[in-house]
Amino acid sequence: MNAPVNLTSLQVGFDVPALPGMDEADIQTPALVLDLDALERNIRKMGDYAETHGMRHRVHGKMHKSVDIAKLQEKLGGAVGVCCQKVSEAEVFARGGIKDVLVSNQVRDPAKIDRLAQLPKLGARTIVCVDDIDNVAELSAAAVKHGTQIECFVEIDCGAGRCGVSTTEAVVVIAEAIDAADGLKFTGIQAYQGAMQHIDNYEDRKAKLDVAIAQVKEAVSGLCEVGLEPELVSGGGTGSYYFESNSGVYNELQCGSYAFMDADYGRILDKEGNRIDQGEWENAFFIFTQVMSHAKADKAIVDAGLKAQSVDSGLPVVFGRKDVEYVKCSDEHGVVADPDGVLKVGEKLRLVPGHCDPTANVHDWYVGVRNGKVETIWPVSARGKAY
Amino acid sequence: MNAPVNLTSLQVGFDVPALPGMDEADIQTPALVLDLDALERNIRKMGDYAETHGMRHRVHGKMHKSVDIAKLQEKLGGAVGVCCQKVSEAEVFARGGIKDVLVSNQVRDPAKIDRLAQLPKLGARTIVCVDDIDNVAELSAAAVKHGTQIECFVEIDCGAGRCGVSTTEAVVVIAEAIDAADGLKFTGIQAYQGAMQHIDNYEDRKAKLDVAIAQVKEAVSGLCEVGLEPELVSGGGTGSYYFESNSGVYNELQCGSYAFMDADYGRILDKEGNRIDQGEWENAFFIFTQVMSHAKADKAIVDAGLKAQSVDSGLPVVFGRKDVEYVKCSDEHGVVADPDGVLKVGEKLRLVPGHCDPTANVHDWYVGVRNGKVETIWPVSARGKAY
Repeated sequence: MNAPVNLTSLQVGFDVPALPGMDEADIQTPALVLDLDALERNIRKMGDYAETHGMRHRVHGKMHKSVDIAKLQEKLGGAVGVCCQKVSEAEVFARGGIKDVLVSNQVRDPAKIDRLAQLPKLGARTIVCVDDIDNVAELSAAAVKHGTQIECFVEIDCGAGRCGVSTTEAVVVIAEAIDAADGLKFTGIQAYQGAMQHIDNYEDRKAKLDVAIAQVKEAVSGLCEVGLEPELVSGGGTGSYYFESNSGVYNELQCGSYAFMDADYGRILDKEGNRIDQGEWENAFFIFTQVMSHAKADKAIVDAGLKAQSVDSGLPVVFGRKDVEYVKCSDEHGVVADPDGVLKVGEKLRLVPGHCDPTANVHDWYVGVRNGKVETIWPVSARGKAY
Repeated sequence: MNAPVNLTSLQVGFDVPALPGMDEADIQTPALVLDLDALERNIRKMGDYAETHGMRHRVHGKMHKSVDIAKLQEKLGGAVGVCCQKVSEAEVFARGGIKDVLVSNQVRDPAKIDRLAQLPKLGARTIVCVDDIDNVAELSAAAVKHGTQIECFVEIDCGAGRCGVSTTEAVVVIAEAIDAADGLKFTGIQAYQGAMQHIDNYEDRKAKLDVAIAQVKEAVSGLCEVGLEPELVSGGGTGSYYFESNSGVYNELQCGSYAFMDADYGRILDKEGNRIDQGEWENAFFIFTQVMSHAKADKAIVDAGLKAQSVDSGLPVVFGRKDVEYVKCSDEHGVVADPDGVLKVGEKLRLVPGHCDPTANVHDWYVGVRNGKVETIWPVSARGKAY
């Protein structure tokens, strides 16, 4: 890379970290890099699994916040649509052409409910989660006002300890209220066990899911008794999808991180005791970073710090290297222990971030690479859409 | 707030969390809220301090990434310009009209050096840090190519353990090389002790700064011996500025967090043993969040999780409340312990984030409030400018 690449925002008015056709080595850092081959293999693999097991796969768009990747998941992985967490995110996906959108979360603010009720006008089937009977009248009024239909999942708290009701009785009461409300449709159950996804041991994860599945089965029985058999029973993540798929009660998965992988998910173990990033899934998602200072012999300073990632689930791992280790993260810098002094200023490294979702959310662009060349630049379409 | 506010991106094509004139209670959450009175008092106070002590104040723009706030710091606090950490950030500030911009960091990538060398064409005095003699020729060639001048600080590592050289000999060698290079000017020393800023105890902080000051004095002596007296000796943060100001060797401060405050800085103690957020500085920077679920009696779920903040320096604190506590953060949710069940769904809270810099960097907008009303909306101008 002798000639500087011509990416200056002085000329084009906005920054992109790369342009198609460029060598990977010339990508401006820090940047999010996607290994397109690995990404596509992950997407096809989960799609094949879901198809084989008769499951719908509603991919979790809150992970990547990208319309382009959601569409790739539809095309290559048979995804039926997306789930996401916020109304503003849902708008991005619906406007981008995704036809089945679940806000897998509660929507309580009047302004947000008003926006939610308009989503069907963008052509998207619109589903939202409910865990409080007071929310039913709010949603109904907005749907009636806009002449639309909002479908509702009753959310069960099956172990995450956040939103969701805890008893079959509460599920049935809310479902009946939804069923009776104008503009709403009772469509099913949201039952995502988030707290167990990152437990390392397979049997420990299974024990948690067994409890959740029993809870969901009881709720479905209760609903059937009042004539409200759920059309969809939705949940399951990268650390649990096989449990939901074999449960006999779930019919829709909501996996997200499988497509990218990250260091924290990578550490969990499959049934045979192997890390899931060593066979089940591939690392497709990296922070590309550059050594910018090596003034001390035994440490290299790289340009990816807290503004380029979230370290809530631990520090990033230098991909494919055992000789150097990312040991400290500050606002703008990472310290990479380099005991043998093998790194050079200007050298670029791939980091596997600790946690993919909030790391994607600090970047504006994905740089897709294949065979050492930049193939595509995708916006992180719903970045910052937290409302 | 009966009538939903009309902020939908369906109509306007982009999201803003509030509009001027709106009640604070109607701001869409999660959002960054600035208490403008507190912000202005913090800015004036540090400006008065710097003036009284004969110090230039180059405010740290990497903290807020906002051209509007940098200009407020010039207007109310006598700031001489900004420092920031990346070339893409510097471009935003220079294009926004800031006339004195220091990239308080190394710039080594050829494409970035080429951009840096063009900054003076935007009307900004341009300064960069150097800690490797090989960088001198790179910078010189780019300045000559563009017919501009790049001013250089030699960076001393005075305790942060990241970038910067460690000996007076190395400082002098690099300064001489800069002085001899076409297109460059040796302007001074960068000596920011970042590692001590968050040490709680005042005397412990002072001990670290005493070491740094001795190191800087020795470097200045060495430079004077070769006829290269530095014009500027720059450093100092919110946890140390009084030490640099009274050192007799620094003449420029680089404070950032004082303007906003955050929970991690707030915990450090002044000379009298009082928390610095209880008198020295005011909390002016908040994450505004809303209770979105209260399905369990003893905990409220709020809508500010990892996509609305960075938790690298600890969880946020609920401002002005002792009866409730933010105890857990996941991607989209915060769990607020509410043992007495005092919070209601829809209620909005101000959170003091753990760490202001990377929290600002995940948001697109600041909402400035005064007397309960929204007064202004400012973009986080350099958000995501990490290159």
